[in-house]
Amino acid sequence: MSLEQSWVESANARDHDFPIQNLPYGVFSPLDRPDAPPRCCVAIGDMALDLAAIEEAGLLRPGGARGVFAAPALNDFMALGPAAWEAARARLTDLLREGGARDLRDDAALRARALVPLSRARMHLPFRVAGYTDFYAGRQHAWNVGVMFRGPENALPPNWLHMPIGYNGRASTVVVSGTELRRPLGQLKGPDDAAPRLGPSERLDFELEMGAVVGVGNPMGRPVSVSEADEMIFGHVLLNDWSARDIQVWEYQPLGPFQAKAFATTISPWVVTRAALEPFRAPSPPREKPLLPYLHEPGPMLHDVRLEVALAPEGGEETVISRTSSRELYYSSAQQLAHHALCGCAMQTGDLLGSGTISGPERDSFGSLLELTWGGKEPLTLKGGARRAFLQDGDAVVMRGWAQGEGWRVGFGECAGRILPAPDFAG
Amino acid sequence: MSLEQSWVESANARDHDFPIQNLPYGVFSPLDRPDAPPRCCVAIGDMALDLAAIEEAGLLRPGGARGVFAAPALNDFMALGPAAWEAARARLTDLLREGGARDLRDDAALRARALVPLSRARMHLPFRVAGYTDFYAGRQHAWNVGVMFRGPENALPPNWLHMPIGYNGRASTVVVSGTELRRPLGQLKGPDDAAPRLGPSERLDFELEMGAVVGVGNPMGRPVSVSEADEMIFGHVLLNDWSARDIQVWEYQPLGPFQAKAFATTISPWVVTRAALEPFRAPSPPREKPLLPYLHEPGPMLHDVRLEVALAPEGGEETVISRTSSRELYYSSAQQLAHHALCGCAMQTGDLLGSGTISGPERDSFGSLLELTWGGKEPLTLKGGARRAFLQDGDAVVMRGWAQGEGWRVGFGECAGRILPAPDFAG
Repeated sequence: MSLEQSWVESANARDHDFPIQNLPYGVFSPLDRPDAPPRCCVAIGDMALDLAAIEEAGLLRPGGARGVFAAPALNDFMALGPAAWEAARARLTDLLREGGARDLRDDAALRARALVPLSRARMHLPFRVAGYTDFYAGRQHAWNVGVMFRGPENALPPNWLHMPIGYNGRASTVVVSGTELRRPLGQLKGPDDAAPRLGPSERLDFELEMGAVVGVGNPMGRPVSVSEADEMIFGHVLLNDWSARDIQVWEYQPLGPFQAKAFATTISPWVVTRAALEPFRAPSPPREKPLLPYLHEPGPMLHDVRLEVALAPEGGEETVISRTSSRELYYSSAQQLAHHALCGCAMQTGDLLGSGTISGPERDSFGSLLELTWGGKEPLTLKGGARRAFLQDGDAVVMRGWAQGEGWRVGFGECAGRILPAPDFAG
Repeated sequence: MSLEQSWVESANARDHDFPIQNLPYGVFSPLDRPDAPPRCCVAIGDMALDLAAIEEAGLLRPGGARGVFAAPALNDFMALGPAAWEAARARLTDLLREGGARDLRDDAALRARALVPLSRARMHLPFRVAGYTDFYAGRQHAWNVGVMFRGPENALPPNWLHMPIGYNGRASTVVVSGTELRRPLGQLKGPDDAAPRLGPSERLDFELEMGAVVGVGNPMGRPVSVSEADEMIFGHVLLNDWSARDIQVWEYQPLGPFQAKAFATTISPWVVTRAALEPFRAPSPPREKPLLPYLHEPGPMLHDVRLEVALAPEGGEETVISRTSSRELYYSSAQQLAHHALCGCAMQTGDLLGSGTISGPERDSFGSLLELTWGGKEPLTLKGGARRAFLQDGDAVVMRGWAQGEGWRVGFGECAGRILPAPDFAG
């Protein structure tokens, strides 16, 4: 097919993250105006298109008289629902494509106001996180962790092949890419210690995940089908579910992960829409056990998003330490959302569903250091010679993801974070 | 001591829930004006004092020029912090006490506007729930459930005596007393079944808890001491953590309770302030194992709140099926909050911390049907002869709580909910 091009030239570069086929949503403020309130945007090539400016100019008004884009979060726009998302995407595509509407392209003053170079934009958390739920839908990851925590005979929990198991995470510490985070303190207890001690985590890890962003919810008491769930999803982000393995192993029985995960979760600043990922749909793997009808998928519901993780010591160069794809998931976001609402749980605009760690079948495709170093026993060697079993202070973890077409891609940008030393605290 | 009296006569009745010593906060709208926006109030005797009216009249302005009470939630007021809470309490006490300020008492028009009989008020959820975390701090409950789920040799998890273990719950389904709820659907699997099936829970239960309401938070990455945590707590509510035991037993390993708890959590409409409960402070029980210093309490941090649970079949009369006290908890809310923030988790205005089920040592002081009927094997007989192992459709559960002085009490009102049949859904 002959691909649509944009008059924003940088969007047409081969394999750029943000071609006109992508148009991911974010929230930005101009670097040179630190007190300007954040507002919504889409990325096009190397630019952020300020949607509040476009809305104010009357070129796109999805909320009618009530504006939705002059806001520090996408929630008001997301809450308008799938028809509004589709209409906005069609209008933005027309405003930005070569040969499309001339309202923006030919208005030099509006262009100057509305198109801000990404190099001069500060990105914010793109939406208010209503609730954060983390699933466990990677088959290889569940197996790997199960072997290390419980041994091979109990590796895969008995319920795992019957439902997308998950747990409620902590929404207040979901942060945008680039936010630095403190190494967590917690109770640590080795298998031979008589009692726990208080200390900074010594087994600090990342988890490579995708996050699904719920655009519209369901009322309490009203479950939804997988098809309905799919329609409720506005888009997807990259997600790093930072984890403290030593805190986790001591606390997680019987109520699940808590402080081991609550200190930080990083997401990409860009929400890539479900519409942009549509050409990259992929089927779930064959079911090892039949699923109950409420989890049946009406069609392919995964996406083939290529993923990589790079690690850089302080002042050092990046080493890519894992490459995999979101095709490796066993359950789709739509299945997770349908399962989440099954009991009558009300889902809300701004809910974030972590996929669970995505690990491929090979050692260099695992999605966490726990797996890549097999419980810390086989450290990785980075460029420059540094060795890592788990993360050290000053380390930066950078995740990248993109769906690959032929010469073009739909990219997520980066999901990055750097570790600061633990706080000085004794109680 | 000679107790303060109010010129609102009903507040002076012996053992009334809402004397002038209480002044619990809530959110109401007048029954006879269904489209009036909800606003904040305190209860005094049989009346709700409309705080938006008091604020508008200039008698109490904790937020200065910016009003905080003409709002459908207490969050803006709570976010002002402990000094503002204390000043508001002092001012309200003075406005309402016999012999105090005459600004309200002597202004007939304002009194008529601002004092609304509770019988003509509809109560709403008192605050926007930012996050809901449920702990497991009842020693007897943890033991009872542990015996039933894992046997007596593994009843108390190894971490239990070292930290207040908890898990993140679902904030979107926290509802106010009086809200009806649908029996949840879920995956059910008996121990001898080859595979799970979809169905309405057959082991639907309540859990008797208290909830601590976080008034002000801490920044991400900054743990807090138990003393600081205590100051961050605005007040307490009664809490029913509805639970589906059959969904729970199949899903909860290894990630903890999820759909078994996510369908509904009911709280009382009244938030009883920490200040009102101050005279009822009680020490935690002796520590069976020494706690790490960050969990040390600077003084008595529990409260002696007497609790009871009543069950009424549809159209039938109430039977009180359990009586206990919040003194039975092993960890205080302040300890729970300090532990929650230990990893650097940001706590926020409106966070709700469930205490965990409160069970006393005797069979008739257990805080759930699971315990009262010992796993459903020994059903209760209600007045009128109905028997219950777990909840049936149409059943109402009513919790009540109060701290008892000599002839006076600080009460919470009711925390009530009724079960509707499961929704008709197959996927």
